[in-house]
Amino acid sequence: MTTRPHVVIVGGGFAGLWAARALARAPARITLLDRGNHHLFQPLLYQVATAGLSAPDIAAPLRHILRRQRNVEVQMATVSRVDADAREVELEHAGGRRRLGYDFLVLATGATHAYFGNEHWAPHAPGLKTLDDALELRRRLLLAFERAEAATDPAEREAWLSFAIIGGGPTGVELAGTLAEIARHTLEREFRHIDPARARVRLVEAGPRVLSAFPEDLSRKARRQLERLGVEVHTGAPVEDIDAQGYRCNGRFVPARTVVWAAGVSASPLGACLGAPLDRAGRVRVRPDLSVPGHPEIFVAGDLAAVEREDGRPVPGVAPAAKQMGRHVARCIRARLGGGTGPCRPFAYRDYGNLATIGRMAAVVDLGAWRFSGVPAWWFWLLAHLFFLVGFRNRLVVLLNWSVAYWTHQRAARIILGGDDRSGRN
Amino acid sequence: MTTRPHVVIVGGGFAGLWAARALARAPARITLLDRGNHHLFQPLLYQVATAGLSAPDIAAPLRHILRRQRNVEVQMATVSRVDADAREVELEHAGGRRRLGYDFLVLATGATHAYFGNEHWAPHAPGLKTLDDALELRRRLLLAFERAEAATDPAEREAWLSFAIIGGGPTGVELAGTLAEIARHTLEREFRHIDPARARVRLVEAGPRVLSAFPEDLSRKARRQLERLGVEVHTGAPVEDIDAQGYRCNGRFVPARTVVWAAGVSASPLGACLGAPLDRAGRVRVRPDLSVPGHPEIFVAGDLAAVEREDGRPVPGVAPAAKQMGRHVARCIRARLGGGTGPCRPFAYRDYGNLATIGRMAAVVDLGAWRFSGVPAWWFWLLAHLFFLVGFRNRLVVLLNWSVAYWTHQRAARIILGGDDRSGRN
Repeated sequence: MTTRPHVVIVGGGFAGLWAARALARAPARITLLDRGNHHLFQPLLYQVATAGLSAPDIAAPLRHILRRQRNVEVQMATVSRVDADAREVELEHAGGRRRLGYDFLVLATGATHAYFGNEHWAPHAPGLKTLDDALELRRRLLLAFERAEAATDPAEREAWLSFAIIGGGPTGVELAGTLAEIARHTLEREFRHIDPARARVRLVEAGPRVLSAFPEDLSRKARRQLERLGVEVHTGAPVEDIDAQGYRCNGRFVPARTVVWAAGVSASPLGACLGAPLDRAGRVRVRPDLSVPGHPEIFVAGDLAAVEREDGRPVPGVAPAAKQMGRHVARCIRARLGGGTGPCRPFAYRDYGNLATIGRMAAVVDLGAWRFSGVPAWWFWLLAHLFFLVGFRNRLVVLLNWSVAYWTHQRAARIILGGDDRSGRN
Repeated sequence: MTTRPHVVIVGGGFAGLWAARALARAPARITLLDRGNHHLFQPLLYQVATAGLSAPDIAAPLRHILRRQRNVEVQMATVSRVDADAREVELEHAGGRRRLGYDFLVLATGATHAYFGNEHWAPHAPGLKTLDDALELRRRLLLAFERAEAATDPAEREAWLSFAIIGGGPTGVELAGTLAEIARHTLEREFRHIDPARARVRLVEAGPRVLSAFPEDLSRKARRQLERLGVEVHTGAPVEDIDAQGYRCNGRFVPARTVVWAAGVSASPLGACLGAPLDRAGRVRVRPDLSVPGHPEIFVAGDLAAVEREDGRPVPGVAPAAKQMGRHVARCIRARLGGGTGPCRPFAYRDYGNLATIGRMAAVVDLGAWRFSGVPAWWFWLLAHLFFLVGFRNRLVVLLNWSVAYWTHQRAARIILGGDDRSGRN
């Protein structure tokens, strides 16, 4: 065996990467595993899907980010199983399978979109979690306008100009608002047979209001801003079926050739390997210090962890919470490496507030005591996201693209990749 | 029928787009057909393949470029056949097939990479003509280093660190030079089990020298610059076979898990529909005014046209030649629309010179009387390409990415898309 304890971190998102960084000076060997080669700044993923940014603008190679941290090694591999008794993870990569032992394990594999028993909806209503998802959405959104332009049958044309976003959370709201802006402004004058501004963008939410994590007054304001941008907001509208032609809702079939799924996530299936209790979304019910019951050497951080705040409300699945959990786990491991035993102090979530963007000049901000919406909220959102984006170049490129978009209504990445085969992957 | 004559342009590359633009004030209806939605700045395609630029940085939607030109309509469709007798083209798009009549036809569908009877090499040695090709190459190049890092067998590791570029023309030289720079500088310090700088990059050319379109002294200088960057240049080395493990050349098998095809192009198969004589590469032997023998209403422009200069040498397949041909064809059509009959004046190629970049600070420039290489040639190449890139935003983003790359050796787009499945498309 090696001399230094081995910390294996699975997942290079906010939780995993921040845990790895916070272990920079720890007397340990760290292996960070991710199935991709990059850290993704997920809050801007919808902008790649809506052709405002290129995929590389919001991602950076994990190896590059961690190149100077000599105690960490990055491996591109998929973890298929955790064997908690043997203290090993099972890896799958191009070279085959192999096992990797650990002294401490940090599971930070996040969540993926979920159809809750309606997996056959997936091909008709793709979701948005990875860069590949975003590029597939972009392809579908851009192709829909091309199809409408080429259609000769008026009903078909209308179906191609009919978009539905299922789910009124932050992702659904961002997608709907941006799509309405694209239809009304970005594509102006570019088509000869259709008027893109007549496209219908429906935001379909099962619950009584959009952005249900926000206070009610901000939900109301968000709805009004969406409607001003041209989005039709349907609340109290649970979707009953989705196929290639459209969706069914409250007993009525609505034609829509482009449907996007933003309605639900479930935790990565890896959490189920631990033998620990899971919540309904498949997240691991961890102990207050984020370790797994019965396995003090395993920690769960980020969207895969079900944790409560002091007041009993759940810690939300947002980037700041994931970063805080990553750092907390690193602190616990450092304490343990330093000779501590027993549980670490409990994780305490510091809630700095909640932001959601809606579209051009439209957003809502909830900083607890201080709530605002509209243009000031939009600027606040913009600066906050620019500030938290990883990498100097990325910030510059995103700033540049946003500035040009602001003045011209243009979007930088309106390129259809992967041919026009609707089933093609890109 | 409609009142204004209908000009159909097939292909939105340099020839087709420049023809459409030059017909801006012509009394005609113009339809520009392309199977993609974008114009591509092909001279920088190798930078997308080598992760220096994002795909959208070097492309712009055709609709957007032409939005203000009211006599043109852009359609995203693949032309499968030309029926010259009926004066119709046959389109394929998602909605099915249909026919489109024309009064004038401009065929500008360019060239694609060709394996000359060895099509079974294609999966092992992809070429570089479209953005999708570039993203697939990028994926393979970046994954090769990941595979090498994960390999446990030394021979396998070495095979993953062995790259071969087949073909010593401008594309092959650019790819080889850049790949050597990536291995030696960009990936520095990022791996723990391999030294990327020990990767072998072989440039394999069947003929006696690289960049054979340049004068011999510049070929020699290019070779020396390549070798200084760390490329092994093999001339007089015709490739006899390629498989997943490597390639055979002069009777010897060379292990190389990543092989890139830059050895040959053949013209788009659409040229064969015209019944006109073709040259060996499948290009249409047009009349001096670029019209098709027997069909004065059909013109061929760009890489699909086989044309000679006044001195009998062929017009090269480069962007400036394609633009000039596009404009010439538009001039002929305008003359015909104005009542002229008979052939238009012959196309005369204005040769402004020939540039090729090799890698960081390395290029060759041949302006006829004035030839130079090295750092000044590199700056000249850089400014020329920035100048000719279409779009203000694209220029800014490319300039920004190049500046950061210059100072940091970093490349902006080192993101592996499409999972790590080697057969996956992205």
